[in-house]
Amino acid sequence: MQLPYLTASSRVRLTPFSTRVEEAGAQAYTTYNHMHLPTIFRSPQEDYAHLKSAVQVWDVSVERQVEIRGPDALKLVQLTTPRDVSRMKDDQCFYIPMVDETGGMLNDPILLKLEDQRFWVSLADSDMLYYYKGLANGLGLNVQVFEPDVCPLAVQGPKADALVGRVFGPDVVETKFFRHTRVNIAGKPMVIARSGWSLQGGFEIYLDGTEHGETLWDMLFEAGADLDVRAGCPSTIERIEGGLLSFGNDMTPEHTPFEAGLGKYCHLETATSCLGHAALVEKREPTRQVRPVEISGEAVPALRAPWPVVDGNGQPAGFVSSAAWSPDFSTNVAIAMLDRAHWSAGSELEVQTPAGTQSLMVRDKFWI
Amino acid sequence: MQLPYLTASSRVRLTPFSTRVEEAGAQAYTTYNHMHLPTIFRSPQEDYAHLKSAVQVWDVSVERQVEIRGPDALKLVQLTTPRDVSRMKDDQCFYIPMVDETGGMLNDPILLKLEDQRFWVSLADSDMLYYYKGLANGLGLNVQVFEPDVCPLAVQGPKADALVGRVFGPDVVETKFFRHTRVNIAGKPMVIARSGWSLQGGFEIYLDGTEHGETLWDMLFEAGADLDVRAGCPSTIERIEGGLLSFGNDMTPEHTPFEAGLGKYCHLETATSCLGHAALVEKREPTRQVRPVEISGEAVPALRAPWPVVDGNGQPAGFVSSAAWSPDFSTNVAIAMLDRAHWSAGSELEVQTPAGTQSLMVRDKFWI
Repeated sequence: MQLPYLTASSRVRLTPFSTRVEEAGAQAYTTYNHMHLPTIFRSPQEDYAHLKSAVQVWDVSVERQVEIRGPDALKLVQLTTPRDVSRMKDDQCFYIPMVDETGGMLNDPILLKLEDQRFWVSLADSDMLYYYKGLANGLGLNVQVFEPDVCPLAVQGPKADALVGRVFGPDVVETKFFRHTRVNIAGKPMVIARSGWSLQGGFEIYLDGTEHGETLWDMLFEAGADLDVRAGCPSTIERIEGGLLSFGNDMTPEHTPFEAGLGKYCHLETATSCLGHAALVEKREPTRQVRPVEISGEAVPALRAPWPVVDGNGQPAGFVSSAAWSPDFSTNVAIAMLDRAHWSAGSELEVQTPAGTQSLMVRDKFWI
Repeated sequence: MQLPYLTASSRVRLTPFSTRVEEAGAQAYTTYNHMHLPTIFRSPQEDYAHLKSAVQVWDVSVERQVEIRGPDALKLVQLTTPRDVSRMKDDQCFYIPMVDETGGMLNDPILLKLEDQRFWVSLADSDMLYYYKGLANGLGLNVQVFEPDVCPLAVQGPKADALVGRVFGPDVVETKFFRHTRVNIAGKPMVIARSGWSLQGGFEIYLDGTEHGETLWDMLFEAGADLDVRAGCPSTIERIEGGLLSFGNDMTPEHTPFEAGLGKYCHLETATSCLGHAALVEKREPTRQVRPVEISGEAVPALRAPWPVVDGNGQPAGFVSSAAWSPDFSTNVAIAMLDRAHWSAGSELEVQTPAGTQSLMVRDKFWI
């Protein structure tokens, strides 16, 4: 199918890196948190192969930050997540499912603790700033909640450590997974974390100040020329292979963290102040859950809406939420939300794609 | 400039009318409230000329609804807007600026009162559902807040009354501006309001149930063939000519309703429970404000980010937030946020577009 065009307006914001991203040949975008997220440079397959073999710089400014600071900062964060965040270290990052009072997911950000009484919430695609503002106003909390001028730039791929080491020094490369430290960019200390939305390893640099965007971009490209550094973006193929869920695709406010397979982040014993706590206690045995599934046969088309999954009798069994042809595994890799009766590894089902019906098998784990 | 492509995912939702919109030849989209909004069918100029001469059907499903019902529904709505909503009639629509505790705008929806203790908030582009949920949870209000399966379809243009009269009968055409009534679609009563995001007149039909989308679409096209009914979409040219502001473009959370020129909707005497009330009292004399401005010279390029406006000495005077070449007025019509020293009608300034510097003159009113 021919892709449609995306028209311009300032409502869907550009980023501090947009000029460089365009110069690098971005052909397609999606939008995310009212901002542009590039999705194709050369081709999805070529971008994917390069991500897995070299190093890419990703403009993920769309991971908007909510800064929460003040005496009630920790309290406000804990109200919104079933993960116990009370013992976070000042250099730690936590993946936190966020839920409302029904236990339905509102977002699945990375929470960064920057110091005592100060957090950044690095968002998936929904206006969590509004939820925090509403909650803080309603409860009269002593806290400031705002969107700082911070835009993450990710460095991902097997050569990411080499590139980051060259630019910021070997100490930074010692940073452990989901820990952060500071680096100096344009004379300003900025947060860098070992994190990122791929399984290939790397860092996310939290650009602090739009005016420094091109400086940071150019530092990375000048240092990485012989590493074949390229502009890239999250790869749907690779992130499905690696089991990285996408909020809005694989889980929505219709689903609990248990349904999303995120039960290990639900600390129902200790995170009792979470507003969804009672609902989650009640819903802790889900009747449907996220599963890795393999779709056999031809390469599937682009997924534009969930595809129904049925059993051998044509009865509903769930839906596929993300799917792509994997060149490395020579099959269609996919993520599905499946009913309990059908979610066991080895279950054979059928998926109804716009191109027709194809066989589907539930796997016991993701590919990488 | 060549437009980029928009890639697919289920995170940016299709609508009940997407199949018909594609069949009608939509070439380009934007995204709005995590959903597809078509932006070009034949060309922006041809779509505009047709809107002003015939009748169009617009898929504005992106105007997502928040339903608020329960004993505290009115209280919750009033907390979020400086417009006094206490005396709304059960068939009334109100344009309401929504603000946070700082008086910054969060959205500018249409509020529909459906019955006692039951409202729909027909949203511009931000997740107000999250703000309402946060506030209702924080205050422990006795209210349900959720997104119903409701998708507006607009009928706009000088022949809109003729088309709506044919399909739904002459009584519906008697509906006054910003009032609503019910019509029967597929055996189900649905809300229809005399409203819409153009100056050409018409209605918005609140499709209640995704499964009836194509039925409604086809009813309109079958009845309107000899009226030259076509698929259309909000026209940037026409809405600037008419002074319809776009949240996210012409005003953002950085601006108060006074700065957006919406002071007449701020009832500071009576709407004292609005959480932004104290801030708005303090900020009721703005130092910058929205103005219609005419940009002379060549047709301006597409606006992708605010364009700086400067005075004769090169000093900052504000920015242009929306702009387009108007075929009917043979000039560039535009909307700017200008500093007090420069906002008087007749002021001559300069705007820095990506194509160069052009002269700008402040007007006393919009074009239509």
